[in-house]
Amino acid sequence: MTNTWDQQILRVHYKDTDQMGVAHHANYVSWFEVGRTEWMRNAGIAYSEMESLGLLLPVVDMTVQYRKPAQYDDIIAVFTKTTDVSAVRLRFNYEVRRMDDATPFTGTEEVTPHGELLTTGSTLHMWSNKAWKPARIDKVAPEVYALLQDKKQMQGEE
Amino acid sequence: MTNTWDQQILRVHYKDTDQMGVAHHANYVSWFEVGRTEWMRNAGIAYSEMESLGLLLPVVDMTVQYRKPAQYDDIIAVFTKTTDVSAVRLRFNYEVRRMDDATPFTGTEEVTPHGELLTTGSTLHMWSNKAWKPARIDKVAPEVYALLQDKKQMQGEE
Amino acid sequence: MTNTWDQQILRVHYKDTDQMGVAHHANYVSWFEVGRTEWMRNAGIAYSEMESLGLLLPVVDMTVQYRKPAQYDDIIAVFTKTTDVSAVRLRFNYEVRRMDDATPFTGTEEVTPHGELLTTGSTLHMWSNKAWKPARIDKVAPEVYALLQDKKQMQGEE
Amino acid sequence: MTNTWDQQILRVHYKDTDQMGVAHHANYVSWFEVGRTEWMRNAGIAYSEMESLGLLLPVVDMTVQYRKPAQYDDIIAVFTKTTDVSAVRLRFNYEVRRMDDATPFTGTEEVTPHGELLTTGSTLHMWSNKAWKPARIDKVAPEVYALLQDKKQMQGEE
Repeated sequence: MTNTWDQQILRVHYKDTDQMGVAHHANYVSWFEVGRTEWMRNAGIAYSEMESLGLLLPVVDMTVQYRKPAQYDDIIAVFTKTTDVSAVRLRFNYEVRRMDDATPFTGTEEVTPHGELLTTGSTLHMWSNKAWKPARIDKVAPEVYALLQDKKQMQGEE
Repeated sequence: MTNTWDQQILRVHYKDTDQMGVAHHANYVSWFEVGRTEWMRNAGIAYSEMESLGLLLPVVDMTVQYRKPAQYDDIIAVFTKTTDVSAVRLRFNYEVRRMDDATPFTGTEEVTPHGELLTTGSTLHMWSNKAWKPARIDKVAPEVYALLQDKKQMQGEE
Repeated sequence: MTNTWDQQILRVHYKDTDQMGVAHHANYVSWFEVGRTEWMRNAGIAYSEMESLGLLLPVVDMTVQYRKPAQYDDIIAVFTKTTDVSAVRLRFNYEVRRMDDATPFTGTEEVTPHGELLTTGSTLHMWSNKAWKPARIDKVAPEVYALLQDKKQMQGEE
Repeated sequence: MTNTWDQQILRVHYKDTDQMGVAHHANYVSWFEVGRTEWMRNAGIAYSEMESLGLLLPVVDMTVQYRKPAQYDDIIAVFTKTTDVSAVRLRFNYEVRRMDDATPFTGTEEVTPHGELLTTGSTLHMWSNKAWKPARIDKVAPEVYALLQDKKQMQGEE
């Protein structure tokens, strides 16, 4: 059984720091969002296309565990994986890790998480229509649902 | 001739700081936006109503002069004034100043700028429709145009 | 037994919105921070003074439950309360609620939560020194510890 | 005479959008900062090293001209160049352009600006010490000054 995650490389910018001299804790929420957006793109689902289908994927629940702070100019990786894919909801798990200075900024890749663990987290999402009412993705966008099922198989979700 | 500006009081939050130990310079751009939004509300024009009329007011030009940095927990005032009101465009001038710790967070008031001057700036805006094409405010929303003319008189614009 | 929370009033700014037409979910993390900063100020503890004592209060764990989105120009209240105060850690609970348009922007007040519930959350913090090592607040800053105990009593924490 | 600029590729994230459906205008200020940080890294000057030398490089003046908005998921390039390098100050010019979807996220490269022009801008910086007083870079950090002179030659500054 494989255990692959998608990896997306980012740089900690000056704007992200606070006067404690580290990346402000709110940034991880945005980094998680980058992780899941790229995960979806890698699965063949562009978030912008979903919006044109009238589908939204708002966050309904989020948890974050902060272990060590990222610092200015660090190269970090967001590792992203789904753990709960159904017709009405989707959960993403995240690990943010500090990478080596020589890490290249390639695109989304499927890998085993590595590097110094900084933060873990999870977001739960419900498929919704433009009126923020629940939507069944298997009915509204069956091809997106099929792509999510494929990706789930590939990453070896139990 | 009066020389009144609208005054809006804000607090510098922790999120606004960077590792230089001051408010990051990008925050002033958002503070200017708060200043002009409240200026418009005070003139009787709610930005959200304009959007429902299909009107946008994008920034086309911005200048900022940074003199002294704001710091965490500072109470600051954004002073806002128009200097160029026509049927197609609108310019706002801004002064961001450090206030006294005891300054109360009242609503928008018309005052003479006071306090330690930190930053000045200006934004130029063009009235646009939803397709980002120029719009004539005197034709599309004459009641908004009239309110802007009234406000201009009140603040003693030359 | 009382059940008071501190209340802090905020406005949703244009910068806070995203193209779903609501306040982006990362903003609540910053609003929680405003809530706890003002809670501490109201308890007689200025965050800036703690930093000058060499004390940091980093977030180690956060949970957020999103129910309804805040929208541009909404007046919202952050209700903040502690639920776990010891010599090494501190937990804050939050409720973000939509207020009436006429709600005045007064300072921090102790109230019972009211208004339409949008988001709830919690952050756990560990007292740390500048080297991000655990600190005992009862030893390093006994007067801060005493103020926290007083506040805990006042808000009727079980 | 060459006319090369440094190019840095970025993605417009969901967090960057506002309810006009475009990237909020304050983001360009942060993108300019990414551009100049990478420009300096490419010149052999790490911003974090300068800070450890006690040197700051605050923005004292900024101008931005907005032509067309960037949109969610756009791949954009920040083109950065110096136009005024002395022992006390440094000016950067920027162009933000929309790139092709297939543009790879390589590191900083020296190129001629290309792609659809969205925004231009300029920031003026003064070398300062930790007390925000002016510093002469040729005296405090002659090796940094030499690197800046070299880079200036390479990019064909008049």
